[in-house]
Amino acid sequence: MSTVYPRIALIGLGLIASSMYWAIKRGGLAHEVTGFARSSQTRETARHIGLCDQVCDTAAEAVQGADLIVLCVPVGAMGNIAEEIAPSLKKGATISDVGSVKRAVIDAVSPHVPQGVHFVPAHPLAGTEHSGPESGFATLYDNRWCLIIPGHDTDAKAVDRLRSLWEGMGANVDLMDADHHDLVLAVTSHAPHLIAYTMVGVADDIRRVTDSEVINYSAAGFRDFTRIAASDPTMWRDVFLSNKEATLEILGRFTEELFALQRAIRLGDGDHLHAYFTRTRGIRRDIIEAGQDTDKPNFGRTERRNFTEQSFSK
Amino acid sequence: MSTVYPRIALIGLGLIASSMYWAIKRGGLAHEVTGFARSSQTRETARHIGLCDQVCDTAAEAVQGADLIVLCVPVGAMGNIAEEIAPSLKKGATISDVGSVKRAVIDAVSPHVPQGVHFVPAHPLAGTEHSGPESGFATLYDNRWCLIIPGHDTDAKAVDRLRSLWEGMGANVDLMDADHHDLVLAVTSHAPHLIAYTMVGVADDIRRVTDSEVINYSAAGFRDFTRIAASDPTMWRDVFLSNKEATLEILGRFTEELFALQRAIRLGDGDHLHAYFTRTRGIRRDIIEAGQDTDKPNFGRTERRNFTEQSFSK
Repeated sequence: MSTVYPRIALIGLGLIASSMYWAIKRGGLAHEVTGFARSSQTRETARHIGLCDQVCDTAAEAVQGADLIVLCVPVGAMGNIAEEIAPSLKKGATISDVGSVKRAVIDAVSPHVPQGVHFVPAHPLAGTEHSGPESGFATLYDNRWCLIIPGHDTDAKAVDRLRSLWEGMGANVDLMDADHHDLVLAVTSHAPHLIAYTMVGVADDIRRVTDSEVINYSAAGFRDFTRIAASDPTMWRDVFLSNKEATLEILGRFTEELFALQRAIRLGDGDHLHAYFTRTRGIRRDIIEAGQDTDKPNFGRTERRNFTEQSFSK
Repeated sequence: MSTVYPRIALIGLGLIASSMYWAIKRGGLAHEVTGFARSSQTRETARHIGLCDQVCDTAAEAVQGADLIVLCVPVGAMGNIAEEIAPSLKKGATISDVGSVKRAVIDAVSPHVPQGVHFVPAHPLAGTEHSGPESGFATLYDNRWCLIIPGHDTDAKAVDRLRSLWEGMGANVDLMDADHHDLVLAVTSHAPHLIAYTMVGVADDIRRVTDSEVINYSAAGFRDFTRIAASDPTMWRDVFLSNKEATLEILGRFTEELFALQRAIRLGDGDHLHAYFTRTRGIRRDIIEAGQDTDKPNFGRTERRNFTEQSFSK
């Protein structure tokens, strides 16, 4: 493994940035990584756990002399931070980001990118339900995909260099157009998140079912939804507001299909239901074969009470 | 641990029955467990892996002399199998079941229960996305809940005895009324499953997003849905058809709430979204505190490529 950028600045120090830091160190991909977070509490935590070689008190200081600056803030905050750091950027540097929506980020950041600085948007498709600087870990990007979204006039060398960094952090890299990215993510991420949030909110709201019933009996399927619905609220508010059209389009398709299945239930059309449920099973198999999930039952969850596995003959 | 029933018969040999068998053996809860499955291939597999002390070729043979008979077949098949075994039941025996819907099973089975035989319906809230005799394991019920649904005239001793069996298999036991059970499960299980099936079907169906995009980029949230949507199609068809009213009621509430969130997205009402997403995060915390899920990121999934964790100072 070797250095890809001598100096990297991470702006925003949540789950994604902190995982990047540990992955960059694991791979020896930079000489020095500086960090900045808006909240002084986050900066303190970062210093306490040794996250970043240097945590700076201003964004301008953090980006000084950086060869790569990665914006790791909520999508709605990207424009402001880009404007703030613009005067401090080194000629020839690259700005990138990790936002879950690309068209809105490009529109917000591009006007602030100075002449002679490259802007190469990116989006690593990885995360957990935890957030904050302490939630990061070096293996988050291993075998996950990172999508790079070059514009039509983006410097090819700047794109290749960013690709090397993500590959060095364990990810597979693909290039994609911004609008297509936003549609694909509406399907694989944004709509599923809104649906999970909705179902968890409904369960919390049904008066005839108590909270403790929902909580205790969640293993029957509901608990998987609660994991998704525990993701960072600020990040997700910004995602939905900035990928409005594609998200609403997919939710419209979803509602249409849900109505068709509800109708099949009401009419007692078992064949329709069985055929639908059989088709969806195949997609799971493909995801496992593509190495994007584990085949272990219940994701190989480790339960609290661990009895010894049966030792009698099988 | 000690014997709860000298002789137990498991009718149907899928995930739930096979996990019961291994848990019964682990706890020494019966002297002999017989098994029956409609399909000769399933019976062969069961014999091959040593599932059940004796696998019988007819249900009547399997229940001969049994003190407890547990119906582990899809909800839609419960009535027929109860009718088939009725003449072979021993006086004083207990029939139970593991169906995910209780009112419909009670209506289907009760007419066939002979005088002098107890009927004590039950439902263990545990499972995985895998099915069939080879998918069972002894720890499936550890720290999960099993709901027992006694009727108003059910023998109290028969209920206590079944409770001891489930507790011996590692489960927590609660008693519940059949209609309330069906409503609670519509919230914690049936509606979430239909929603997951729907979303996975929609993703498969959007022509502008390729299958390989859906599969590769599933780690952004979608893969959790595919796990649920990989559950047994026959079982789930029967669940929806036999818990029609409660499922449709919850789906109605879900759709209403989803429309409100879609409206907030369209209108750009970030405060509404943020407040909603913050509330749902709390439910996740409660589920983890109740021991019903792990707090490890992504359920503690084990990924395929395992790099060594960072060894540098943190």
